[in-house]
Amino acid sequence: MEQQVTGGVTAPAGFTAAGVACGLKPTGPDLALIVSTPPARAAGIFTTNLAVAAPVVVTREHLRRSHGAVCGIVVNSGCANACTGDQGLAVAKTMATDTARVIGCSPEQILVSSTGVIGVHLDGDKLHHGITLAAGALGRDGHAAAAEAILTTDLTAKEAAVRATTPAGVFHVGGMAKGAGMIEPNMATMLGFLTTDAEVEADLLQRALVEAAEDTFNAITVDGETSTNDMVLLLSGGRSGVRIDDAGYQAFVDALHTVCRELALAIVTGGEGATKLVEVTVTGARTTDEAKRTARAIANSPLVKTAVHGSDPNWGRLIAVAGRAGVTFDLTHARVRIGEVELFGDEQVFADREPAAAKHLSGSKVTIGVDVGTGGTGTATVWTCDLSAEYVRINADYRT
Amino acid sequence: MEQQVTGGVTAPAGFTAAGVACGLKPTGPDLALIVSTPPARAAGIFTTNLAVAAPVVVTREHLRRSHGAVCGIVVNSGCANACTGDQGLAVAKTMATDTARVIGCSPEQILVSSTGVIGVHLDGDKLHHGITLAAGALGRDGHAAAAEAILTTDLTAKEAAVRATTPAGVFHVGGMAKGAGMIEPNMATMLGFLTTDAEVEADLLQRALVEAAEDTFNAITVDGETSTNDMVLLLSGGRSGVRIDDAGYQAFVDALHTVCRELALAIVTGGEGATKLVEVTVTGARTTDEAKRTARAIANSPLVKTAVHGSDPNWGRLIAVAGRAGVTFDLTHARVRIGEVELFGDEQVFADREPAAAKHLSGSKVTIGVDVGTGGTGTATVWTCDLSAEYVRINADYRT
Repeated sequence: MEQQVTGGVTAPAGFTAAGVACGLKPTGPDLALIVSTPPARAAGIFTTNLAVAAPVVVTREHLRRSHGAVCGIVVNSGCANACTGDQGLAVAKTMATDTARVIGCSPEQILVSSTGVIGVHLDGDKLHHGITLAAGALGRDGHAAAAEAILTTDLTAKEAAVRATTPAGVFHVGGMAKGAGMIEPNMATMLGFLTTDAEVEADLLQRALVEAAEDTFNAITVDGETSTNDMVLLLSGGRSGVRIDDAGYQAFVDALHTVCRELALAIVTGGEGATKLVEVTVTGARTTDEAKRTARAIANSPLVKTAVHGSDPNWGRLIAVAGRAGVTFDLTHARVRIGEVELFGDEQVFADREPAAAKHLSGSKVTIGVDVGTGGTGTATVWTCDLSAEYVRINADYRT
Repeated sequence: MEQQVTGGVTAPAGFTAAGVACGLKPTGPDLALIVSTPPARAAGIFTTNLAVAAPVVVTREHLRRSHGAVCGIVVNSGCANACTGDQGLAVAKTMATDTARVIGCSPEQILVSSTGVIGVHLDGDKLHHGITLAAGALGRDGHAAAAEAILTTDLTAKEAAVRATTPAGVFHVGGMAKGAGMIEPNMATMLGFLTTDAEVEADLLQRALVEAAEDTFNAITVDGETSTNDMVLLLSGGRSGVRIDDAGYQAFVDALHTVCRELALAIVTGGEGATKLVEVTVTGARTTDEAKRTARAIANSPLVKTAVHGSDPNWGRLIAVAGRAGVTFDLTHARVRIGEVELFGDEQVFADREPAAAKHLSGSKVTIGVDVGTGGTGTATVWTCDLSAEYVRINADYRT
């Protein structure tokens, strides 16, 4: 049994957090710290972008070298520390060293993460100051400030947590995320930090994270862009005393999935300029992969996203995208549904139903269904948001 | 030697054209007719979208059955005749039959084309009326009205023509095109109608069209969408008396290329909501294909297009897209140039040059260069436009 609880990343026992301002952003908190006592096993998934940022390089290495004893995660916003060469790598390592010093562990027991503008050097002095401040502010009540400190153009902080009551005992999973722009589902798609007081072996932890991310973080898209800095990290401290073995695995994945899904949908809902959450489900594909490819093409189509924004039930655009998605498609058996309203099927157009579809589109949660007509059992759901003039404004003005 | 001339599709001898209004659009001309005397050899390239529209099906069939004796092309705007089932196919055939009757030939000697909203039935009575009107209006001076009649959300008509003086003699190539939205380079990318008074065998004509389209119509993108109706047709009437053989082939392709390029760039310049023409050149790739894939990813990136719109020299977004394009990329040797200004190279950031790059971006023609750092000789250029709030407005309001 799962129950939603408050507390974000500190809902699980053994975790403290803090969020502070150290001047990396013009205003507001910009440095977050999560600390696990005792040291935690850790799992991570990372961006597939080949222009990988320094913190991703360092965190991958620290995950390998910490041998399942991670003490904390330090995250800054305001600067991505990407395309910053050797100097960037040095700063990312210093970020870990500074944090290790204030909380008392080895540098490789600290994971680092950054988000913000690419190609700007991260100010080591400000970081050092922020890390010191954050260490002094650590607490069970620091989760909200931490969730606030990792945001860039996001409008709201994104936190989630559940208490899972299972045959093996009661444990918690908590998390926070950063989204907004440059969001497309390839491996990890944004920043996500997850914690649990269940005790999970490293291999099982990694497997659970990959599995939970597949149809949550990896099934969302705001603008089809994959960032240089994406990562999702999961720490398992074990303080609940509940050990997850093969028998308890499904209950753990379920709880993790609940938290990932809530954060993923919050990212899409809070997408840059978004006014609507759009759920695109593709059915009738030959395989799940083909279904996901079509669903992603639809979710990334500017013509679909603008039509949704304008509450225009322009189903022809959905057919046009499905036809160009590069996978099997059969127009003679294809069907399109907006909300519960079927607008096209068996090559028949139901124009008289468009007002009902327009009414559905005018809401803040939109569902779109496309059957690609091959008669296969492949199905997939992808979530996105609409494309508004505000997205253009945000991204035309981002740095200026 | 090539010389730009006026006259569009009727610049070559033997062609007449007309553009008339028959009520398919609320206002303005919406039916175009191009007639060749004598019947012409024809070549065509078509959308790769699997949700192929009725006029594409019919025109492909008529190209096969007319045995190189095409008498004319009839085009309507205001309705795509796509997703219209058997009824749509019947209307597309009637469109050819009606045109054949008024100009005196067999239906298969007429090619048909449509553009506009998907999933709406084409009004056969209005078409019939329009075809009759157009036949009466045919003339050498009808090219401009024809170019006007094929537009949807385009702001301006797109025409081009050249006179080529070659060792084999003097001939002309003319053309007109329709672009604006749902434009992405896969085979044909929009509507394009080309004419020539050179005499070219069918096989050579098709080869020349494919070759000329490769780095013109197939190297542009407005929004990454491939329409259900795209086609580019080329008619060779032969009235110049100049026969194109292997020796004259290159001069013919060059002239054709000039016209295709002018039309393709006009489509991008006139893209929905566009305020700037953007030329993206990728170098240093392992192959031409890889270079083109990265160039297209950049040209379709909403983050790049909005940054260009806002004149923000946000080169980090260019690196981020190159890194996620799915092809080889080496950050340590990558370089980024905006205009003549190198902003990133050898992992060095040249932040002090950003004002100069911003100045270049504030112009109406922007060039972007990305070297993907693999040391290969693969290079490709793709043209696109910026992404503005106006694009969102146009496409959110299209049908309402």
